[in-house]
Amino acid sequence: MRVLGIDPGYAIVGWGVIEQEGIRFKAVDFGAVCTQAGVPFEQRLVQVYEGIKQVCETYKPEALAIEKLYYQHNQTTVIGVAEARGVILLAAAQCGVPIYEYTPMQVKQSLTGYGKAVKKQMMEMVRLMLHLPTVPKPDDTADALAMAITHCNCSRSSLKDYLPRSRGPI
Amino acid sequence: MRVLGIDPGYAIVGWGVIEQEGIRFKAVDFGAVCTQAGVPFEQRLVQVYEGIKQVCETYKPEALAIEKLYYQHNQTTVIGVAEARGVILLAAAQCGVPIYEYTPMQVKQSLTGYGKAVKKQMMEMVRLMLHLPTVPKPDDTADALAMAITHCNCSRSSLKDYLPRSRGPI
Repeated sequence: MRVLGIDPGYAIVGWGVIEQEGIRFKAVDFGAVCTQAGVPFEQRLVQVYEGIKQVCETYKPEALAIEKLYYQHNQTTVIGVAEARGVILLAAAQCGVPIYEYTPMQVKQSLTGYGKAVKKQMMEMVRLMLHLPTVPKPDDTADALAMAITHCNCSRSSLKDYLPRSRGPI
Repeated sequence: MRVLGIDPGYAIVGWGVIEQEGIRFKAVDFGAVCTQAGVPFEQRLVQVYEGIKQVCETYKPEALAIEKLYYQHNQTTVIGVAEARGVILLAAAQCGVPIYEYTPMQVKQSLTGYGKAVKKQMMEMVRLMLHLPTVPKPDDTADALAMAITHCNCSRSSLKDYLPRSRGPI
């Protein structure tokens, strides 16, 4: 199974494509779509949309795993992050990629078995699970890879366990 | 000047195109992009995007006036509305339409001279100013037309008055 994980934003959109083979994971490619402060916001949305659409078209993932946004997120940026998230969901939907959402706690639980793991632990688990020499940078990219691993882990769970965690199809 | 006003949302996106000739306004066309509850959210975003893109391509507005979203908006829907607003901004940017934002208070002030005008007053002012036999329905469409009128009124103000109200170009 090939999964695209995304950490949404309007300044940096981390992305990572992983391949699951049995119980092993392989990083296919990863990176970040970065937009410049000072560029009109709608042009930053265009850059995010085009960047993610290109990733979907290049790697043809079977699923997109993306962080679920809550009202309680950072008040000063949540509206802009949600607007960027909207164009990311649009790009994925137009490419026919099913969308699944996970909370930060689900990601931490999935990678470390502990829902309150600290960032450094998470980063190191991403590196170990994907057999990478170093932790991918920026942090948004590592977060995106963690999201993709979470989807693979959740997909191996039973249907009963899995259904409430996502809004996409199985 | 031809202006497209939009009242953003993911269930109903009101839109209205008006033409300003001197101090008179004319409604060119108006309507709403409606999406069904139960349809996967990302498919609703696709419908919103395609609907607004079609409006931009058909009427070729010189400006898009849209409500500014704040964190304080309805907590249960603000994330979804912002996601839909993101794809609306994307569609307009891809069509080369400059974007201007206004608060509900600016719209009320612009149409009635009173920033706390009630909905019924606003609806009636839209009808009168556009010489329409009845108030356009749904309310989202009338709100969109009010937004477009606000942009025309603000554009007649001095540059100094106008600049702080929008993030788009003059």
